[in-house]
Amino acid sequence: MKDKKFKPCDLVIYGALGDLTRRKLLISLYRLENAGLLEPDTRIVGVDRHPGDSAFYIDVAHKSLQQFLNERLDEEVWKRFSSRLNYLQIDLTRMEQYQRLHEVIDQQQRVMVNYFAVAPFLFKNICQGLDQSGILTSKSRMVMEKPIGHNLKSSIEINDEVAKVFGENQVYRIDHYLGKETVLNLLALRFANSIFTTNWNHNTIDHIQITVGEDIGIEGRWEYFDKTGQLRDMLQNHLLQILTFIAMEPPANLEAESIHNEKIKVLKALRPITAKNVDEKTVRGQYSAGYVNRKPVPGYLEEEGANTDSTTETFVALRADIDNWRWADVPFYLRTGKRMHSKRTEIVVYFKRVPHNIFKDSYLRLPPNKLVIHLQPNEGVEIEMLNKVPGIDENLKIQKTKLDLSFSETFKKSRIFGGYEKLVLEAMRGNPTLFLSREEIEQAWTWIDSIQNAWAKSPEKPKPYQAGTWGPIASDLLLDRDGRAWEG
Amino acid sequence: MKDKKFKPCDLVIYGALGDLTRRKLLISLYRLENAGLLEPDTRIVGVDRHPGDSAFYIDVAHKSLQQFLNERLDEEVWKRFSSRLNYLQIDLTRMEQYQRLHEVIDQQQRVMVNYFAVAPFLFKNICQGLDQSGILTSKSRMVMEKPIGHNLKSSIEINDEVAKVFGENQVYRIDHYLGKETVLNLLALRFANSIFTTNWNHNTIDHIQITVGEDIGIEGRWEYFDKTGQLRDMLQNHLLQILTFIAMEPPANLEAESIHNEKIKVLKALRPITAKNVDEKTVRGQYSAGYVNRKPVPGYLEEEGANTDSTTETFVALRADIDNWRWADVPFYLRTGKRMHSKRTEIVVYFKRVPHNIFKDSYLRLPPNKLVIHLQPNEGVEIEMLNKVPGIDENLKIQKTKLDLSFSETFKKSRIFGGYEKLVLEAMRGNPTLFLSREEIEQAWTWIDSIQNAWAKSPEKPKPYQAGTWGPIASDLLLDRDGRAWEG
Repeated sequence: MKDKKFKPCDLVIYGALGDLTRRKLLISLYRLENAGLLEPDTRIVGVDRHPGDSAFYIDVAHKSLQQFLNERLDEEVWKRFSSRLNYLQIDLTRMEQYQRLHEVIDQQQRVMVNYFAVAPFLFKNICQGLDQSGILTSKSRMVMEKPIGHNLKSSIEINDEVAKVFGENQVYRIDHYLGKETVLNLLALRFANSIFTTNWNHNTIDHIQITVGEDIGIEGRWEYFDKTGQLRDMLQNHLLQILTFIAMEPPANLEAESIHNEKIKVLKALRPITAKNVDEKTVRGQYSAGYVNRKPVPGYLEEEGANTDSTTETFVALRADIDNWRWADVPFYLRTGKRMHSKRTEIVVYFKRVPHNIFKDSYLRLPPNKLVIHLQPNEGVEIEMLNKVPGIDENLKIQKTKLDLSFSETFKKSRIFGGYEKLVLEAMRGNPTLFLSREEIEQAWTWIDSIQNAWAKSPEKPKPYQAGTWGPIASDLLLDRDGRAWEG
Repeated sequence: MKDKKFKPCDLVIYGALGDLTRRKLLISLYRLENAGLLEPDTRIVGVDRHPGDSAFYIDVAHKSLQQFLNERLDEEVWKRFSSRLNYLQIDLTRMEQYQRLHEVIDQQQRVMVNYFAVAPFLFKNICQGLDQSGILTSKSRMVMEKPIGHNLKSSIEINDEVAKVFGENQVYRIDHYLGKETVLNLLALRFANSIFTTNWNHNTIDHIQITVGEDIGIEGRWEYFDKTGQLRDMLQNHLLQILTFIAMEPPANLEAESIHNEKIKVLKALRPITAKNVDEKTVRGQYSAGYVNRKPVPGYLEEEGANTDSTTETFVALRADIDNWRWADVPFYLRTGKRMHSKRTEIVVYFKRVPHNIFKDSYLRLPPNKLVIHLQPNEGVEIEMLNKVPGIDENLKIQKTKLDLSFSETFKKSRIFGGYEKLVLEAMRGNPTLFLSREEIEQAWTWIDSIQNAWAKSPEKPKPYQAGTWGPIASDLLLDRDGRAWEG
C-alpha cells in the first residue's frame, strides 16, 4: 500500500440538493479540500432533478457551507473547492436522462465514484439508469449509507439491486462510527500492545459495556423513526460495529478481506436472542417528558406528529453473548437511547478483580481495573487502576487513579477529523477496509430480526423512562441480576 | 492493624552530634513533628560523649535545622519539637556510663527505641553497655542503617553482636529506598491491579532494567568509598531491594514475616556470579575527569586523598538471573554509578513485543510496551504504549504514547514524604514490614561476595568512563550482546 498514488475521481452525488448532501457531504468535502486532501483533478458532480447549471450548484454549496460549517469559510479554499463543482439535472426515475453523465464524466483521467445520497427506494432506479447509460466500468464505485434496509429481507433487496450493476468490491457501505479515531485506535490498542493482547479474553476480562447515549430526541422525523426504533436505528449498525472491533480475533493483516472476515466471525458467533429469552436479555424503553440539559422536553408520544399508541422503543439495553473460545462467559452489555442524560458514547472493558486482596485494611473489596474508551463528546482512552496513596499512614492505603490518554491533549498538533470525512476520503481513494461488507450487514440483520420478532410476540411493552435519565430501571436490573452495574 | 494506638517512645540516638543525626535524623523528626505524626508523649534523647545538657542539645538541633532544613523553620513546631529534646553525655566505650540512661528513660509510659547513628565498630560497645545497664526489655527496639558489614563475614559479626541483646523482632534495619513512595507503590501496582498481576512473568515480560545513577562523586569520603566500591555501597542494598520488590511472589498478606519470606526466596534464587562468568555478566567502571551538569569535575584517581592506583569501581552494571518459574529467561539488568550524566533512579519493565505485526506499513518493528517507574528525581509511573496517530492518512499510523501517572501531579493534596522519614516513623511505631531481616542482608551479601571474589581473581580492571556519561561502553555491550539496550 506504500506510496500508492491516488487517482483523481469524478464524485457523482445523487441527491445533490438533499439534506444529507447539504448538511454533511459538502461540509466534509470542503474540509478535505481545506486540508489539501483532495486530488487536484478530482471533480464533484451534483445530480438532482431541479433545473440548474454549475453556477446554480456553486451557489447551493456556498449557502450550505455558510449555514452548516462551524468554522469560518476560507475564501482561498472556497475558490479551489467551487472550481470542482458541476451540476447535472437528472430525474432519477427517467432512465434516458442518465445519458447526460457522459457530458462530464472522464474515465480516462478519473475514477467514477457514485454517492447515493437519496432514500433507498431510489437505489434501484439509479442502478438501472447507470447500467443502461453504459457509463459504468469495473473500476466505478458506489457509496451508500444507512439505512441499508430495515430488516434482513429489505437489506437483501437493496444489496441485490446494487449487485446487479456493481461487484461487491465496488460497493462502499458507510458506518461513520468506523471512521472515528478511537474506533480505529482500538486496532492499535488491541494489536500493537502486548499488555492488552495478552489480556484480551475470558481469562482476564470480566465483561464489556458499550453505551451510545443521545441527548437529542426525534428531531422532527417522528414518522420515520417510529417505523424504525432505536434497535434498528443505532444498535444494528453502530453498536454492533463497535462490538466487532472489540471482539474480533487478530486479523492477519489490515486488508479489507482479513478485517471483514474476522468481523463476520464475531457476528456469526452472537448467541441468538429469541422469544424464549428476549424478556430476560433485553430491555426496551420509551421516553416520557422530562428535562434534558435543564430544559423541559416532551415525551415521545407527545412529539409533533406522534401516534399516541406507538410502542416503538427509543431505548434498548441488552446482554449479548459471543459463543466462541475467547469470549466464553464474558457478556457484552449494550445500551443506546434517545433523550438520555447526556450525549455520551463509550466502551468500558472491565477486567477481573485480583484473586486475593492483601490490602483489606484499606480497601475491603478491590475495584477492578478498567479500560475506558471515550468516543463522544470527547475522544480518549483511560486506564483506571489502583495506586498507593502517597503518605505515611500506618496501612498501605490504595486508591483508584486514572492513566489518561486524551487525544486532543496528547496530539495537539494533529487535527482530529470526523469519522464521516475519513470515510468519504477513503471511498474516493478506493480503500475498502473501513466499509461494511454485504455479509456483515446481513449477518447483523439476522441477529437483530430475531430480537425484533421476539419483541413482536412478547406481551411486554417498552418501559417508560423520564427524558434526561439513563433509561428505565429495568436496564439497571439487567446488569444487577448478574452482579454488575452500568458505568456511572 | 486497624485503629491501633501507637505507644509513645523514648527515641535514644547514639551519635547525637554526628553527621547522620544532624543532617538527616533531626530533619526527619522535625518534619514528622510538623506533620503532627509524633505521639505527644514521645521524647528524643541525644547521647554523645561531649559534655552538655538539654539546653545544649536544643541549641545543636536548632543549628542543624537552620543549616540543613530546606523549608522555613516554623516557630510553633520548633517549640513543640524542642520540648521533646534531652541530652545525656555518655562515652559509648565506657560501660558504667550507660547507667545514666535510667535518669531519663520511662518504660512504663514509653517504648525504648535505640537508634545507632554511629560507625559499626561501636555497635558492640553500645549493645554491651545497654545490656549491662539492665535497661532493656523485650519491648525495646534498635534501629541501624547501612553499612551493615562490608561482606557476609562482617555482616554476621555485627548481627551477632546485636543479637546478643536484641531479638530479631526488635531489630529495625533501614534501607531508605524501601520508604520511597514508588517502591511501596510497587506493591499496589503488582498486587491490586489485575492488568499487571496477569502479566507479571516470563510469558509477557522480556526483561527488566534497574538504574540508580548518581551525579555526585565521592563527596570528600574517598578513603571510605575506596574500601567499599559501588557494588557494596549501592547495589548490595538499594538495587537488590528494588529487585526483590519487583520479583517476589505475591505475599499472603502485608505482615513483615510474609514480605520478608518472599523477598528472601528471590535472593536465594539469584543465580550466582562466579569467577567463571563474572567477566561476561558484570561490568566495572571508574570515572575519569569530565563534565557533570556542565561543570568540570576531576576523575576518581584525581580526587582529594586518592590513591592513584586504586582499582575500586565507581560504576557497576550486571545481568542478574532469577532461577525460578516466574522469571525463567527474564534477565534483570542492574546498573549504578557515581558521576553519571544525571541523578536518576528508575525501573523499566520491558514487555515482550506482539507476536505478529499487522502495522508493518507504518512501523516496521513495533516497539514493546514498557512500564517505567521513576524514583528520582521525580517519583511517578508511566506506561509506554502504542496508539493510532490521529489523522486520515491512508495507512493506519501508530506511534508511542505515554500514559502518565505522576505522583506530584495526581496527588496534589497529599504531601510526599521522603523514604527516610517514613522509615523513622515506622520504627517508632513498631511496624517492621519495611525493614530488612537479617536473613535478607546475609543472603544479599552471599551473592555480592561471590562477585567481589570473582573480581579479585579476574585480570580485568574497572574500565574508565568519562564523568557525566552513563558509564563505560562495556555496559552498553552487556545488553547489546542480548539484543537489548539501556533505556535512553
